[in-house]
Amino acid sequence: MTSQGSLGEFGRIERFFRPLARGFAGALSLTDDAALIAVSPGQELAVTTDAVVAGVHFLASDAPGDIARKALRVNLSDLSAKGARPLAYTLTLALPREVSDRWVEGFAAGLAADQDCFGIALAGGDSVSTDGPVWVSITAFGLVDAGRMIKRSGAIPGDRIWVTGTIGDAALGLAMIETRLSGSSADKEFLAGRYRLPEPRVGLAAAIARHAHAAIDVSDGLAADFGHLCMASAVQGIIEAEKVPLSPPARRALQTDEKIWGTLLSGGDDYEILFAADAEAGPFLRQSALETGIKLTEIGIVTPGAGESAILRADGKPVLLARAGWTHS
Amino acid sequence: MTSQGSLGEFGRIERFFRPLARGFAGALSLTDDAALIAVSPGQELAVTTDAVVAGVHFLASDAPGDIARKALRVNLSDLSAKGARPLAYTLTLALPREVSDRWVEGFAAGLAADQDCFGIALAGGDSVSTDGPVWVSITAFGLVDAGRMIKRSGAIPGDRIWVTGTIGDAALGLAMIETRLSGSSADKEFLAGRYRLPEPRVGLAAAIARHAHAAIDVSDGLAADFGHLCMASAVQGIIEAEKVPLSPPARRALQTDEKIWGTLLSGGDDYEILFAADAEAGPFLRQSALETGIKLTEIGIVTPGAGESAILRADGKPVLLARAGWTHS
Repeated sequence: MTSQGSLGEFGRIERFFRPLARGFAGALSLTDDAALIAVSPGQELAVTTDAVVAGVHFLASDAPGDIARKALRVNLSDLSAKGARPLAYTLTLALPREVSDRWVEGFAAGLAADQDCFGIALAGGDSVSTDGPVWVSITAFGLVDAGRMIKRSGAIPGDRIWVTGTIGDAALGLAMIETRLSGSSADKEFLAGRYRLPEPRVGLAAAIARHAHAAIDVSDGLAADFGHLCMASAVQGIIEAEKVPLSPPARRALQTDEKIWGTLLSGGDDYEILFAADAEAGPFLRQSALETGIKLTEIGIVTPGAGESAILRADGKPVLLARAGWTHS
Repeated sequence: MTSQGSLGEFGRIERFFRPLARGFAGALSLTDDAALIAVSPGQELAVTTDAVVAGVHFLASDAPGDIARKALRVNLSDLSAKGARPLAYTLTLALPREVSDRWVEGFAAGLAADQDCFGIALAGGDSVSTDGPVWVSITAFGLVDAGRMIKRSGAIPGDRIWVTGTIGDAALGLAMIETRLSGSSADKEFLAGRYRLPEPRVGLAAAIARHAHAAIDVSDGLAADFGHLCMASAVQGIIEAEKVPLSPPARRALQTDEKIWGTLLSGGDDYEILFAADAEAGPFLRQSALETGIKLTEIGIVTPGAGESAILRADGKPVLLARAGWTHS
C-alpha cells in the first residue's frame, strides 16, 4: 500500500470510511481482516458484484460523490431485481496516486448519502494505488427469505412482462455527453443525469420478491436483458414497443429521429428492473407502484417455446429481436 | 462491456469461468444477477476482500495462473487467520483490451488448481476492460461457528504468540527480483517464489478457530501486524527476534548483512498467520502443526498494558517496535 495524499491510506480509512461502517456491527469498525455476516434461520444471502471504471462506466471528470453513488447503485439495482433487501457491501477502490484527500472525502460523502437513502452500510474494503484509471469494485449483500430469491429463470407462458421507470435515458444521455446526439439543454441535463446516477428500485424489491416469477436488472439494454430472461426461463416473449415507458426527453429525441429506437432498446445502463409476473398480480403491482412512487409499466407477455423473443411495433414489425441472450438489430 | 480477444466477454465466461462455479450451487452457473449463499443455523459468514494490481502486488510479466492464485490466496489467508473454512468467492477482473484468450485461460487454470487445493469455488463475478494495468479484486466467504470468528482483539496477558511458516521471505524475494539484493540462484528462486505465490494456511484454520484468542494475517510485515493485534487487544507484547522462524535462504541473507532484520520483520507480503493463544494450548497446537505439516512457532508472549510492543534481541535490544499499529525501525 502506498501512502496517498496528506492523510495516507490509514488516515483516509479512519477519517472517511470508518463512519460508513457504523450502521453494520459485523464490519468490526473496519479494524479486522474480515467482516462478519449473520443470517437468520429462514433467510439467505444474495451476493452481487459489479465494478465501474473511469472512461467506461463514468467520466473521470464526474464528481467523486456521483462516481461512488453510481458504483453502489448498480449493485443495489441487482439486489432489487432479485427481491433482496440491502444489508451491507464491501468496497475495493483503486486510485491514482495524485488523487487528493478532498476527492476521497467527496467520494465517501456520496456513499454516505446513498447509504442513508437505501439502508445499506459498509462492511469492509481494500484500497490500492494504480497508475491507471480510477476503478471501484463493490460486492453487495442482501437478504431474501430462504428459497425466495427471484432468478432470471422462472417465467412461464401467460406471465405479463413489467419494467420499472423509463428505458433508454442513460444511453441517450451518454450520446449527448459525447456530443453524438443533440437536444435542448434541459433534455441533455435530464438524460445525462440518468446516465451519471441510475435510480436503483430498492423500494420495489419487496413487491418483486412477492410477485415476480423471474426478474433481471436491465444493464445490457432492454432487448438483450429481455433475451437473457427468456433464455434462462426457456420461454419466448413479446414486448410491445409502444408500451415501453419513455421519458419526455427520450420521446422528443425519438420524434426527431425514429432510428433512436435502436439506442433506446439496446443502449444499456438503464438499471431498471424487468420482470415477469402472473397476470393476476397486476393490481397488487400497481398498488406497490403507487405506494412507492416508482413507475411500473406492463409491456408484454411471455409465450410458449424457446428461441427468438421480440420487441414489436403496433404494426407487428419487429423493432429488435432478443435471441438467445444476444442482441440483434 | 467491451468484447475482448476472439471469444469476447460472454465466451470467456462460458468457456473459462463457468467451470469454476460447478462446485457451488448458489453460483447459479454464473447465469444470474446474484449468487445465493445459505448459512446454516449456528454458523456465520466471514467476508474478506483484497485486490491485487500489476506493478504493486505482482509483476505484469508473471504467469497468469500465478497472478490468479496470488489474488485468491491473499484472501484465503485472511479467512484462515479468522478461523474460517473457505466456502466461495466473487471475482472482479479488469483486463487491458489486448489481453489474449490464452492469458485468460491460464488465469482460470490457476484458479481451478487452487480451488481444488483449498476447497473453494467461484460464486460470481464481473469483468471490465481497462486502459490501465491488470487488476483482480476478490471477495471471499468462509464459514465460522456463530460467535467464534477469531478477531484481532481478544489477546490477554500471558498468551503465547505464535506464527505460521517463515517470515520475511517474500520481502527478500521482491528485493532480489528488483535486484536490490543478491543471493545464490537457488535462494533467489525460493524467495521469489514465496513472493509470487504465498501459502495460505487453510489447514490450520480449524486449530486457530479452536485455540486462538486473537489472530491476524501478516501482510503489512510482522512488526506492523503484531502492533495491530496488540493495539486491537489493548495489550502489549514481546516477540523474541531469535525465535522468529526464518527459512534457510533468509538466514543466509541475514548472515551476510545484519541490517536485513529490518526487511525481514517489516517487509510484508508474508501471508502467514500471527496469533495469540493460552499457554496451555501449546501441545494441541504442536499436534495440529504435525498433522497438517504446517510449521508453527512460538515466538513471544502477551504482556499487560497498552502502547509499545517490541521485537527484542536476546541481549534485550529492540530490533523493531510496533507502536499503535505503526512500524518504527
